[in-house]
Amino acid sequence: MIRVTVWNEFFHEQHDETTKKVYPEGIHKAIAAFLGKEEDITVKTVVLDDENCGITEELLNETDVLLWWGHVRHNDVPDSVVDLVQHAVLKGMGIIFLHSGHHSKPFRRLMGTTANLCWRETNDLERVWVVKPYHPIAQGLPRYFDLNGEETYGEPFDIPEPDELVFIGWFSGGEVFRAGCCYRRGNGKIFYFQPGHETFPTYYNENVQTVLKNAVRWAKPDVRVSSLTAPHVRKIDDMKDGEDYVR
Amino acid sequence: MIRVTVWNEFFHEQHDETTKKVYPEGIHKAIAAFLGKEEDITVKTVVLDDENCGITEELLNETDVLLWWGHVRHNDVPDSVVDLVQHAVLKGMGIIFLHSGHHSKPFRRLMGTTANLCWRETNDLERVWVVKPYHPIAQGLPRYFDLNGEETYGEPFDIPEPDELVFIGWFSGGEVFRAGCCYRRGNGKIFYFQPGHETFPTYYNENVQTVLKNAVRWAKPDVRVSSLTAPHVRKIDDMKDGEDYVR
Amino acid sequence: MIRVTVWNEFFHEQHDETTKKVYPEGIHKAIAAFLGKEEDITVKTVVLDDENCGITEELLNETDVLLWWGHVRHNDVPDSVVDLVQHAVLKGMGIIFLHSGHHSKPFRRLMGTTANLCWRETNDLERVWVVKPYHPIAQGLPRYFDLNGEETYGEPFDIPEPDELVFIGWFSGGEVFRAGCCYRRGNGKIFYFQPGHETFPTYYNENVQTVLKNAVRWAKPDVRVSSLTAPHVRKIDDMKDGEDYVR
Amino acid sequence: MIRVTVWNEFFHEQHDETTKKVYPEGIHKAIAAFLGKEEDITVKTVVLDDENCGITEELLNETDVLLWWGHVRHNDVPDSVVDLVQHAVLKGMGIIFLHSGHHSKPFRRLMGTTANLCWRETNDLERVWVVKPYHPIAQGLPRYFDLNGEETYGEPFDIPEPDELVFIGWFSGGEVFRAGCCYRRGNGKIFYFQPGHETFPTYYNENVQTVLKNAVRWAKPDVRVSSLTAPHVRKIDDMKDGEDYVR
Repeated sequence: MIRVTVWNEFFHEQHDETTKKVYPEGIHKAIAAFLGKEEDITVKTVVLDDENCGITEELLNETDVLLWWGHVRHNDVPDSVVDLVQHAVLKGMGIIFLHSGHHSKPFRRLMGTTANLCWRETNDLERVWVVKPYHPIAQGLPRYFDLNGEETYGEPFDIPEPDELVFIGWFSGGEVFRAGCCYRRGNGKIFYFQPGHETFPTYYNENVQTVLKNAVRWAKPDVRVSSLTAPHVRKIDDMKDGEDYVR
Repeated sequence: MIRVTVWNEFFHEQHDETTKKVYPEGIHKAIAAFLGKEEDITVKTVVLDDENCGITEELLNETDVLLWWGHVRHNDVPDSVVDLVQHAVLKGMGIIFLHSGHHSKPFRRLMGTTANLCWRETNDLERVWVVKPYHPIAQGLPRYFDLNGEETYGEPFDIPEPDELVFIGWFSGGEVFRAGCCYRRGNGKIFYFQPGHETFPTYYNENVQTVLKNAVRWAKPDVRVSSLTAPHVRKIDDMKDGEDYVR
Repeated sequence: MIRVTVWNEFFHEQHDETTKKVYPEGIHKAIAAFLGKEEDITVKTVVLDDENCGITEELLNETDVLLWWGHVRHNDVPDSVVDLVQHAVLKGMGIIFLHSGHHSKPFRRLMGTTANLCWRETNDLERVWVVKPYHPIAQGLPRYFDLNGEETYGEPFDIPEPDELVFIGWFSGGEVFRAGCCYRRGNGKIFYFQPGHETFPTYYNENVQTVLKNAVRWAKPDVRVSSLTAPHVRKIDDMKDGEDYVR
Repeated sequence: MIRVTVWNEFFHEQHDETTKKVYPEGIHKAIAAFLGKEEDITVKTVVLDDENCGITEELLNETDVLLWWGHVRHNDVPDSVVDLVQHAVLKGMGIIFLHSGHHSKPFRRLMGTTANLCWRETNDLERVWVVKPYHPIAQGLPRYFDLNGEETYGEPFDIPEPDELVFIGWFSGGEVFRAGCCYRRGNGKIFYFQPGHETFPTYYNENVQTVLKNAVRWAKPDVRVSSLTAPHVRKIDDMKDGEDYVR
């Protein structure tokens, strides 16, 4: 079983009328609903207003893949939580950043860049193109799929060059955006997926759901490590005696 | 001075009425015209029907950057010419592949892939977006520029992940394409630039000219080597004597 | 089941006394022996002197991962065979190049470079270091392992920057070498592994066997495609009607 | 002129007898001495105990390339200083991290990883191998050069895959290390160079000096931007009117 935790800011869904109608129980619950139907996936959800943002080391140790949706309250996530998430990723936990999660503290921490981008809210149609048809995250998708209404995100997107660029978004208003980006950092896999503005029913879209189910399976760790310090920072006094540490 | 050679198939310009009107002297002459006005660039042109495709080892040794435009007669370039071009690149010559040059033998040789893509001729508008505004090839450009009529190229484009993706094309018909891709192979720099269909006046566009002038300066070698075999394949018999070969 | 084919030049084992003693049935049989013991792997072997080098499109279609060992007779592999291998990889077949296979035609075809390197035969000890302890190919290995006698390979190694560098070799004579390199090309995964000179019992080493077993599992395709031309080069006449091709 | 600033922790040189003898005026002064002799370089130095660690926005705006040496007092650099350095890099300032600077806050911020590694102090000889002989940072160097005494650094080194790996270190005690790593982040170039332990006269070595002089020239910005927010995060309300922002 792949143990998934969906983290959500859960703010718009409680304070914005449009969003309330689209995601009455919150984006986290909408995502958990379709992921939880998969036979190989179990899902938990936590939200920003939970104690310590819902993040504990115990939870992360029991999470194979974390999904992260945030937007206007990024700065309410304390650095100590960002530390926990970053280290869990480097130890092997997969992480999927959704839409405006590009500006979340954990994403910027893992990228080392501002993750700035251009944006516009004009209900553009987005056509999501598959750039790597054979990539595990693209399996079961058509060549492209349309979202009849999304927030427009535009380049330049201030990120390190992706290890693998899986999707590019085409917007009817004239923009393009690197919509699906894969990274490896430490022992962890990172996927950024751009669609998912809170006022559109994006997470009910069958193709978007396929992407996220695929991404969960891609991001799950091959192996987990209990500590980052043990294997890495140490003095090798007796290497020639052939005594190896256990990873 | 940067010594540029423009290689052109020069077929459509002699056999297709539309192309004749757009490029009466050939695409190579149109490109040479604007590059040759730069104070730091000198330009030669060669065409497919020249002896040995116009390619000799001497020419390549005196070429800092080679531009390559071909389309329907890729297979008339013999493998021996491809060998010469590939080795010149690995020894340090920069190379810029233009438009349908994606399917040229030298490009496929250097990429190791089919370089297949999707395409459609329906006079789409192409909007070329700058993904890396700070890249040397993007200097002097606006955020994006439009080409009112281009052949549509679409993903998937079967290339290795680019070292740096500088441009993405947005097409009015709904496609996207990785329109500007940088690679390093051996000592050489490679740039692929997608706009430039023979029936459109793309190479007269000021922004396209800026891209190509920038690309020439980016691709020029920092240093050239006279041989690939000398520095690489050798038996190191006396390394411990501290005798180094001269690169 | 992962269907593996081991390709071997099988020349030294028949003509060189030292090699005969180490690999009396050939390197391919030694590799097939330990891979074939794995419950999830079935193995075939073919050699250079088989008809058409033992390579047919049918065989490649039924091969999930191909291993390739060659050394002094690279040029006896015709380009038509290289074409078949290259296209099988781009369609999804994994491939593992062993030791002097760096100079094989299929490796150079897939890399686009000379794959030149430095070398010396002085029975150095090689210490193979794990650079990415969490990589699937490194599972079950200690931090490093020693080979008491290997041909020395040295940098510079003329290859594209690896997508992932998994091993670096340390040689007692003073060299280093990028000993384990991963690439993705088209739909295929490529792994180069440097140890394996014909006069040393490298392929009987338990850690080397672990590497190759892991590499087979890593390189196996997620999905295969029957054709490279169908999905890629096509005219999209009616895209707006929503009619997608089947990949 | 390339405006260089050398930042040094300057602790060992004041408190450790061995280091005092090697670098009586501090590592920063030793580096400034040889860089300052170059006709195209001007050098300033700042140290940890300067006000605000010697770092101001004004200084960074007037710095083309920053060199950073730190070891035991990384945590005395406040996050506000790390913010300034990170943003200067993303806006275009080049940065060179030296030796134990791998664990500095700015390096870890820009990498997004722990930058952990293995280490041992046993006066090993280090042989620094040139992996990319044609890279601008490797110009003027022999195939390899020896340092008769360095701290041993060993893999695994927890960093993102380098854009370009220029050097690999071979240690007489049996380790290897990715000793010269290039990255691009935002508009800035980053180089990590491993040699330079405080108890060895590494920075007086002619080849090390060549590396650092080359690295300064490689890392200098092609173009600087005054702000990260202006070009990136904005609402594009009137894009179709053709009004572009100035980058």
